[in-house]
Amino acid sequence: MSDDQTPSYPREMWWVVALKDEVSRTFTTRWILDRPILLYRRSDGSPVAMDNRCVHRSFPLSESWLEGDNVVCGYHGFTYEPGGRCIRVPSGETPPPDARVQSYPVVESGPFVWIWTGDPDAADPALIPDTSTMTGDGWSMISGYYEIDANYLDLHENLLDLTHFSYLHAGNLGTDAWASVPVRIELMDNMIQTQRLLENHEPPALYARTMGLTNHRVDRHSIASVPTPAIHMALGRLVDLEPEGDRTDYNLYVIHAITPANEEQLHQFWVISRDYAVGDPTVGDELSKGTLQAFQEDVDALSAISDMRRRDGRTDYRQVSTTSDKAGHQLRRLVGRLVRNEQRHSPVGSRP
Amino acid sequence: MSDDQTPSYPREMWWVVALKDEVSRTFTTRWILDRPILLYRRSDGSPVAMDNRCVHRSFPLSESWLEGDNVVCGYHGFTYEPGGRCIRVPSGETPPPDARVQSYPVVESGPFVWIWTGDPDAADPALIPDTSTMTGDGWSMISGYYEIDANYLDLHENLLDLTHFSYLHAGNLGTDAWASVPVRIELMDNMIQTQRLLENHEPPALYARTMGLTNHRVDRHSIASVPTPAIHMALGRLVDLEPEGDRTDYNLYVIHAITPANEEQLHQFWVISRDYAVGDPTVGDELSKGTLQAFQEDVDALSAISDMRRRDGRTDYRQVSTTSDKAGHQLRRLVGRLVRNEQRHSPVGSRP
Amino acid sequence: MSDDQTPSYPREMWWVVALKDEVSRTFTTRWILDRPILLYRRSDGSPVAMDNRCVHRSFPLSESWLEGDNVVCGYHGFTYEPGGRCIRVPSGETPPPDARVQSYPVVESGPFVWIWTGDPDAADPALIPDTSTMTGDGWSMISGYYEIDANYLDLHENLLDLTHFSYLHAGNLGTDAWASVPVRIELMDNMIQTQRLLENHEPPALYARTMGLTNHRVDRHSIASVPTPAIHMALGRLVDLEPEGDRTDYNLYVIHAITPANEEQLHQFWVISRDYAVGDPTVGDELSKGTLQAFQEDVDALSAISDMRRRDGRTDYRQVSTTSDKAGHQLRRLVGRLVRNEQRHSPVGSRP
Repeated sequence: MSDDQTPSYPREMWWVVALKDEVSRTFTTRWILDRPILLYRRSDGSPVAMDNRCVHRSFPLSESWLEGDNVVCGYHGFTYEPGGRCIRVPSGETPPPDARVQSYPVVESGPFVWIWTGDPDAADPALIPDTSTMTGDGWSMISGYYEIDANYLDLHENLLDLTHFSYLHAGNLGTDAWASVPVRIELMDNMIQTQRLLENHEPPALYARTMGLTNHRVDRHSIASVPTPAIHMALGRLVDLEPEGDRTDYNLYVIHAITPANEEQLHQFWVISRDYAVGDPTVGDELSKGTLQAFQEDVDALSAISDMRRRDGRTDYRQVSTTSDKAGHQLRRLVGRLVRNEQRHSPVGSRP
Repeated sequence: MSDDQTPSYPREMWWVVALKDEVSRTFTTRWILDRPILLYRRSDGSPVAMDNRCVHRSFPLSESWLEGDNVVCGYHGFTYEPGGRCIRVPSGETPPPDARVQSYPVVESGPFVWIWTGDPDAADPALIPDTSTMTGDGWSMISGYYEIDANYLDLHENLLDLTHFSYLHAGNLGTDAWASVPVRIELMDNMIQTQRLLENHEPPALYARTMGLTNHRVDRHSIASVPTPAIHMALGRLVDLEPEGDRTDYNLYVIHAITPANEEQLHQFWVISRDYAVGDPTVGDELSKGTLQAFQEDVDALSAISDMRRRDGRTDYRQVSTTSDKAGHQLRRLVGRLVRNEQRHSPVGSRP
Repeated sequence: MSDDQTPSYPREMWWVVALKDEVSRTFTTRWILDRPILLYRRSDGSPVAMDNRCVHRSFPLSESWLEGDNVVCGYHGFTYEPGGRCIRVPSGETPPPDARVQSYPVVESGPFVWIWTGDPDAADPALIPDTSTMTGDGWSMISGYYEIDANYLDLHENLLDLTHFSYLHAGNLGTDAWASVPVRIELMDNMIQTQRLLENHEPPALYARTMGLTNHRVDRHSIASVPTPAIHMALGRLVDLEPEGDRTDYNLYVIHAITPANEEQLHQFWVISRDYAVGDPTVGDELSKGTLQAFQEDVDALSAISDMRRRDGRTDYRQVSTTSDKAGHQLRRLVGRLVRNEQRHSPVGSRP
């Protein structure tokens, strides 16, 4: 993204940078919002996030090593404490006061590691969406990660228009009737929420299999919310209309943390928790397998779309939308307001 | 190609998009003049050409399937009839009136499938150059396809300056003397024609082999014409000066349909028909093998030239031309006139 | 590099284009200062350097052949004498007077082949830095070549700040103490010279091994000079403080010829001569092996840095420097003056 382009993402907010178990005493790196991020844990287990770029000659700090909780640059030995301040230079002189890399406020919450990419003084952990249910008692979790060649809003749009289940995911998540279920959209306090209900119908193949509901009739509920542009949180509930035992409800929480790497690439951290077959590894494996198949279909579709837009010579090409696109449109408008607001309140060239 | 650049190709004309046998009930796709084209046949066998880009979210329609003669988008199920009009959207509501992808007038003629890339109302099949001889009685045809990293005019220029036979194709199409044969150039009604005659000479290796003329003396005629920027049509005739039987004439029609993919890539559809050894597969194979070798030499040369121009820091580098470049220069002037003419008559931003 | 950007390199000087033994009767090619260069030897052994781009249709001359000492273009047969003048065109007519490719003054000196990339009339061989010691009696030489994805000044900077030995090359060239040795910098007549002395210390691993000084204490001298932006010349001397025989001094000349391919790629031609174990192939192999390991560490570091700068969205990122960067800064200032001087004295657009 060059300096004179408006970014598609706000910076004054929390973004997911990793799944919790990706961060350890070994370095992890990730490009987030056009910046290189270095992640590791102090010896006490607490996470650290700083620029993965030595302030001296731009060497990636990840190509180096920890000395206690400090990072030693592998090129000339510049050494940084976890807050980003340089505490040693090779000549042995006192490090200059501007010798510091940017460090980022970092919080572990739910299954994720979050960083605040804006003004550090404004980093309020209370702004982080609550995802603690995912890792709570009575739930079993699976998770995964994708890097996708698409703008992050394209994945949001994909998830907010579930009519694609019936086509792109016909073999696992979708049924024919799902596409025409009416959607109720609410916009409250910068949060988008959608609701769908398909009554007295066959369940989608993957869920039927893992819930033991093949050939049963079900009511299918789907509630999704986007509390910040960083995350899509969905609840899928199937109510068994022909129960054979006591159980009638089957719930799946599906969370997608979506973080821009840059304008043309995104990170997708996904987590699914279920309240049935808890702790049953066979069901976990079956659900993982089907989920990976469906999400790979999304990855491929979004990449193909990016490629199409890049190559087509019609730079003024106008897409056509229908009612199922309303929630996606509202999110784009909301994000546009957030970005313009940041640009108004930030002096030119002063972005941290 | 960005909006403010003059393209090197006219749009108000017929271009070859495929060899006939490339189009079937399975989708074929090709980028033509910076646009994605989807090709298939209706159940009655007639060809269809439309944009390979769903008007909803830009998904490539080729990643989907046919429902009868209609195309169902694999992302959200938008469905298009062969004329490009959307007849179904996932929510089940009436498709909006602007929900249509561009379809292209398409004609099968000679060995090729042609599409009209300009204003559909001006698409007159009578403007398609006649290539019916290639598939006629008494002729045997071979054909092939290349995608080349070069502007399409570079391949035209290559074909109009046959002195390269003696060097680039010394082992198969050229002889030493061929380079210095004088060329007669005629420009009639926007058509360029060149003629060469080399009298009483040895035949080039590939032709001698397939005609059985090794060690014979021959007169070699070459007549080439470029009736539109879409096609180069050549007749090669060898007259045997030492005939052992009745036959003295051996004719080869060589046609290159040349279509820009964009400013830096072209499609080459080539067809060769011979009036000797008709139906003899051994001669067909021999001719194919030698032809593929020669054409690969052209592919490699044009790619190397593109690479050279891209990398050289001298953006004002001026090439030097000689008499053998005259026909190529005339074609470039002619095409320049056609393009400027189109731009004058097309309102800004209204290119279809 | 586009026309409106100031290059980072001067053009009115000698640059190394190859190691001597890379140039033969077979073509060698190399991009130098954004131009394609063709290298070969006349039948009398003298080297030739000319543009590797046929002036007719930009075909690379390297894809062709020699006819005596002349180059025949493999596309249409344009033929050039070693001075770059075209002496034959395919049609047989007299070549036009502007049919010439640029040829470059070329000199073999020391282990290198040098070309003058500026105004040929100003090409004075006396300006070539003397590297004859490298190939002299009493010295054994090893050499090699790298192409690196970095601006050529980044490699100069790497070599002028030897504190990186202690970190990037800790396993072969560096010791812990080396990083904090004070450096004396002198700037004389456009030449930068640095001196370091580490007294009474352990020798670095690679040198200790090849000199037989493991566990000895040594004084380590390092003198480096950059007589022109084309070359970094260093002398490393170890003085054995615990000699077991007569020999106390061990000398290594290390020369890096550094030539920009373009703004983002460089050629590194390296040569190391030693005055000990002269003619001993075992020591030569050991020294080669360790040197290749160390230099590969530099190649990887410089590429990683280039990649970091390219991807980071902060186009106004400011690096921080310390005392060890002074020599590098001085070289950048000196080169900046040379480039601005050239631009002032060269009419716009007239760069040869």
